[in-house]
Amino acid sequence: MFELDPLEKKLKERLEFLSTAVIASQLLKRGLRHSTISGLLPINVDFSRMVGPAFTLGFIPMREDLGNSASQSVHTNPQRIAIEEIPAGHVLVIDARGELESGGFGDILAARLLVRGVAGVVSDGAMRDSAQLRKLALPIFCAGSAAPPSFARIMAANLNRPIGCGGVAVFPGDVVVADIDGAVVIPRHLADEVARDGVEQERLERFVRSRVDRGETTVGLYPPNEAAMADYRRWCEENGGGFN
Amino acid sequence: MFELDPLEKKLKERLEFLSTAVIASQLLKRGLRHSTISGLLPINVDFSRMVGPAFTLGFIPMREDLGNSASQSVHTNPQRIAIEEIPAGHVLVIDARGELESGGFGDILAARLLVRGVAGVVSDGAMRDSAQLRKLALPIFCAGSAAPPSFARIMAANLNRPIGCGGVAVFPGDVVVADIDGAVVIPRHLADEVARDGVEQERLERFVRSRVDRGETTVGLYPPNEAAMADYRRWCEENGGGFN
Amino acid sequence: MFELDPLEKKLKERLEFLSTAVIASQLLKRGLRHSTISGLLPINVDFSRMVGPAFTLGFIPMREDLGNSASQSVHTNPQRIAIEEIPAGHVLVIDARGELESGGFGDILAARLLVRGVAGVVSDGAMRDSAQLRKLALPIFCAGSAAPPSFARIMAANLNRPIGCGGVAVFPGDVVVADIDGAVVIPRHLADEVARDGVEQERLERFVRSRVDRGETTVGLYPPNEAAMADYRRWCEENGGGFN
Amino acid sequence: MFELDPLEKKLKERLEFLSTAVIASQLLKRGLRHSTISGLLPINVDFSRMVGPAFTLGFIPMREDLGNSASQSVHTNPQRIAIEEIPAGHVLVIDARGELESGGFGDILAARLLVRGVAGVVSDGAMRDSAQLRKLALPIFCAGSAAPPSFARIMAANLNRPIGCGGVAVFPGDVVVADIDGAVVIPRHLADEVARDGVEQERLERFVRSRVDRGETTVGLYPPNEAAMADYRRWCEENGGGFN
Amino acid sequence: MFELDPLEKKLKERLEFLSTAVIASQLLKRGLRHSTISGLLPINVDFSRMVGPAFTLGFIPMREDLGNSASQSVHTNPQRIAIEEIPAGHVLVIDARGELESGGFGDILAARLLVRGVAGVVSDGAMRDSAQLRKLALPIFCAGSAAPPSFARIMAANLNRPIGCGGVAVFPGDVVVADIDGAVVIPRHLADEVARDGVEQERLERFVRSRVDRGETTVGLYPPNEAAMADYRRWCEENGGGFN
Amino acid sequence: MFELDPLEKKLKERLEFLSTAVIASQLLKRGLRHSTISGLLPINVDFSRMVGPAFTLGFIPMREDLGNSASQSVHTNPQRIAIEEIPAGHVLVIDARGELESGGFGDILAARLLVRGVAGVVSDGAMRDSAQLRKLALPIFCAGSAAPPSFARIMAANLNRPIGCGGVAVFPGDVVVADIDGAVVIPRHLADEVARDGVEQERLERFVRSRVDRGETTVGLYPPNEAAMADYRRWCEENGGGFN
Repeated sequence: MFELDPLEKKLKERLEFLSTAVIASQLLKRGLRHSTISGLLPINVDFSRMVGPAFTLGFIPMREDLGNSASQSVHTNPQRIAIEEIPAGHVLVIDARGELESGGFGDILAARLLVRGVAGVVSDGAMRDSAQLRKLALPIFCAGSAAPPSFARIMAANLNRPIGCGGVAVFPGDVVVADIDGAVVIPRHLADEVARDGVEQERLERFVRSRVDRGETTVGLYPPNEAAMADYRRWCEENGGGFN
Repeated sequence: MFELDPLEKKLKERLEFLSTAVIASQLLKRGLRHSTISGLLPINVDFSRMVGPAFTLGFIPMREDLGNSASQSVHTNPQRIAIEEIPAGHVLVIDARGELESGGFGDILAARLLVRGVAGVVSDGAMRDSAQLRKLALPIFCAGSAAPPSFARIMAANLNRPIGCGGVAVFPGDVVVADIDGAVVIPRHLADEVARDGVEQERLERFVRSRVDRGETTVGLYPPNEAAMADYRRWCEENGGGFN
Repeated sequence: MFELDPLEKKLKERLEFLSTAVIASQLLKRGLRHSTISGLLPINVDFSRMVGPAFTLGFIPMREDLGNSASQSVHTNPQRIAIEEIPAGHVLVIDARGELESGGFGDILAARLLVRGVAGVVSDGAMRDSAQLRKLALPIFCAGSAAPPSFARIMAANLNRPIGCGGVAVFPGDVVVADIDGAVVIPRHLADEVARDGVEQERLERFVRSRVDRGETTVGLYPPNEAAMADYRRWCEENGGGFN
Repeated sequence: MFELDPLEKKLKERLEFLSTAVIASQLLKRGLRHSTISGLLPINVDFSRMVGPAFTLGFIPMREDLGNSASQSVHTNPQRIAIEEIPAGHVLVIDARGELESGGFGDILAARLLVRGVAGVVSDGAMRDSAQLRKLALPIFCAGSAAPPSFARIMAANLNRPIGCGGVAVFPGDVVVADIDGAVVIPRHLADEVARDGVEQERLERFVRSRVDRGETTVGLYPPNEAAMADYRRWCEENGGGFN
Repeated sequence: MFELDPLEKKLKERLEFLSTAVIASQLLKRGLRHSTISGLLPINVDFSRMVGPAFTLGFIPMREDLGNSASQSVHTNPQRIAIEEIPAGHVLVIDARGELESGGFGDILAARLLVRGVAGVVSDGAMRDSAQLRKLALPIFCAGSAAPPSFARIMAANLNRPIGCGGVAVFPGDVVVADIDGAVVIPRHLADEVARDGVEQERLERFVRSRVDRGETTVGLYPPNEAAMADYRRWCEENGGGFN
Repeated sequence: MFELDPLEKKLKERLEFLSTAVIASQLLKRGLRHSTISGLLPINVDFSRMVGPAFTLGFIPMREDLGNSASQSVHTNPQRIAIEEIPAGHVLVIDARGELESGGFGDILAARLLVRGVAGVVSDGAMRDSAQLRKLALPIFCAGSAAPPSFARIMAANLNRPIGCGGVAVFPGDVVVADIDGAVVIPRHLADEVARDGVEQERLERFVRSRVDRGETTVGLYPPNEAAMADYRRWCEENGGGFN
């Protein structure tokens, strides 16, 4: 139903190599100061990384005549459509309006997403059934846990529309990368250059770190002056920085 | 461009007679506890009442490559479309995500809405040019004032979609009534009965108030027992309660 | 039903003369840093002062099977008991848990309090029917306005128990003074000395202000050195500082 | 001193089998949307479940002339009475007013509760001595850790009165169940039916999950249509769903 | 003691002509999205405008052994130095850490500032003695009112250092302009161009507003196309836009 | 560059023996209720304790023309000076204004602090590169994790000035102790007596705990009456309480 572009293989590999800290730095160099959702944590600590294009789902506040099991679990409900239609490899990004007192969904829908091959879930709200979710091999980054079903407080209303998630604009197709620092949202048109320059930054920072660990001062090293850069180039020749 | 139903004359007259307190009570009797946006105030104290069907506009967080004057003031921007397309008699309801550090719009766009005959504006964010807005004969209920243009922090993204405003679900066409207690959102399918029963409640409360002012205890009067109801019916015959 | 001591005439007169700023200073001198409820405003600007002993009412969160008109407006409900039993001259102090999305009560119950001679109302939550309350000759200090009845969100549960109101401990019988800076709560056992020393402070500050208005530096004057104190004593002899 | 009913054995067993997510769903079906305290975590991760009737303790803000070690650790202080009088098997539920900058109590009082056989502690505030509490075999769910003693900021004032805890009404005797999603409060009169229907829901969800794990779509399965229900009944006959 | 440059006459005149909305737009065009302090209101509504260079004062949290009348009202206290040393024409900008439960200062120190010719006061905290301050001919923009003296909660610590005020960086000498939309902080090096271009923007917006009031659509007018610009230039020739 | 006194050996040993809970109690006995920063957690759980004198760094909000990599990573930037100049054994205490959406610094600067022998870092904001920081043998207590560099939102501005950190006043040289309950700040002039009395309190509490674990009531034991004190003295003779 939704035709969304998967990530090219090279781009995906580069982004999997990068921390959100490096990506956020690259976006900031391009003037983007509001591209990172902070305060999220992975429910399953063994699945604390994800990369993929965004498939968006927006919630609005619940209204009691609609927020009930009957109307919220029919298969025309936008959340249910999202679960069954999100393409493999995509990230389900949820604008839960920061809702922390009810949970977006629980282990049954999460298990369905896992079976369907999604890359992960990012929500600025809470999830439920955390004890079960912790055992699932699915990266889920969210802002907390809560026992009540989402429709106790919010209702899914908008599918693949531009949303806000944790104070960040997310357009369908934007590239989402998450790790334990949070989730960064890369505008699709910037993804290639951010990935390319990010790999270079990552490599340089590994060099710098190795020098700091040896006891060198950061003055002249970070950022590097000419001598440090020459040293860096020699270091690159000797070892590739962990990524080519 | 948007075909939305105006309010029937009788419904509008009844709602204009009612306080938001009475309407909220009627909604609560029907199980709706989350239908009132609190914390809003009218910018122009002489225009502190409004009634009309909702025309909705949703914002998302700003992204710096889009949040600039060039892209935000073109006439294909959803906010600009809303300003020029909202039907007369409607209320522009804005999901500004509670944004208080930039202002939705200022006196030029507000003046345009006034000329176009809109019933008013309700926003859970701030407005700008407050000194000018205070002089406009347009009811604007919002959560504060701020000098920067909206795109310093947020961008219009969704037009006539279901939104949340101040924690309340608003669907296009819902009936909005505002006074200095806030703005109440009546689901369209409930508007007639809420208006009808609200008028009856308002009349009864005026009777009760008149008795309290005379020194009667609230016990047996509020809520009224049978004797008080009989008294009320006599009172109604003598004076219509201010509305027929 | 409740036997509570009214304020002695001399104490009441002194406190009516004092601003909450002076009283808060006197409490601070005695080590009390958390005795003032900030962020409250009088609904009726012409009734922006009150003095009286506290009669307390505590709310808890609403539970839907109890939070309805039937169970909340019976006359055994603690709020209704408070309205009918609070002694004249007392202040109804409400722990509304900072609830801003429903209103404690509206014009009917407020009118009843006025008839019953209460000194005023202080709530850390909102009130409803603000348009009507603004016309009542009753000092009501609260944190906002909201249309829904209180039981949309909270329920009265505790009567004349120690409460917290706006971050301040309030015991029944404590002396409450409010003005546009907020409401200060004086432990009953300190009321006399606070009032007495407050009058003296107020008189000194009026003297200081008169000198500042004439262009004197605050150095040596505020706080006063010996010369300034001698000058003050002369000033007192000439005019009594507005209060004896 | 306090006579409170323990939980019947069958009810307790059923509730121990249920997640808070299932219980919250059952309460929501009965119209209760505000029965779950979110944002709490167990201090000791090995003791992350509790079931028992509530014994309540309410705090108010501290006043400096009372908030000191002398007056707060006497054995007539409500907190100390609670510690020594709460019946075995009960849950101590604390309205700490969301206080996160001082800790309700530390390892000595917690150790005393453990010895006395309480089922656990739920507080919407912080606890202190976390390093020690982590080693105690006592379920303690709270909102954080803080070094100062409670009376640095709050004071115990009300014992076995209705309280609010984390936005939820708690009456003495209500049934409290907690797990890592939070703590759910079941009105005592609903506990039996919630437990009974919850077991049935839990069983059905385990069936659904088993089918989702095999790759089935949620359409027609969750919620189940007639065919799925027939399948479910066969599945129940084959295995009891883990609980009888 | 402090040598700070006053504003040049031409710059001051231009800024007095401009709303904070226009200035914030000009700063945003230059990439500055965080230069406006929102949520402030003038205490005296008749003095709701100010323009002047910043003289900064920074507070830190109170410590009880220092936060008392003796140590806080000596004339070596940074706040007292600020009051007596701030040059005429300057704006006292206070980083009160958003403190709303104690008041920066009251009528005596404010009266001293008035006598000394300061342009006004901007604080992200509260002030005390509001009833008196409302009568003073001094523009004071702040976030609320509170009865306790500042040292109940905070202490002055840093004088003419870079501060944050309401989320905005303020360096000594920056130009501050305030009106009822809030207070905008212009980096000194940008003040001239912002003032110059702001006047032009203001004039254009007055023209646009006049056309909107006559019923013209905003399409093609705001922003103006070539025809509208030609019309604007004619309009300018006819009337100077209220400022030259 | 900065001459700051290291802690005397005896004082340091005593403080290393004490929990922040005991230290906060000792400060409270001396009237200090606001000396503990709550809500902080150690990034590396194996390094969850620190003791040392404070070296302070204060941030202000970012301004876009200054908040960029070029101006923020020069070695005259106050943060960079702090990193290279803080004496060994000291604690870097950061007033990050509670900023949670950008990270103070990452693994390179943290590694430099480790090499330089600092005792640890305390910040009321977030850190970045958490995955790397978790592997560093450096105690870092902060309020969260975030991917963007600090200058996305804040800028270092004040070095070794009095600051506020998490609501607590910190003067350079104050003694900082942190554990999983938070970080407590001891005014330097009180450090010796707090450490001495704290050791005594710690010893007494260990005795009390041992008795509670054996099943004794807290009545008469905690606080101890004369009999309990006699018992305690015998207990002390038998074992030294773990510290001499």
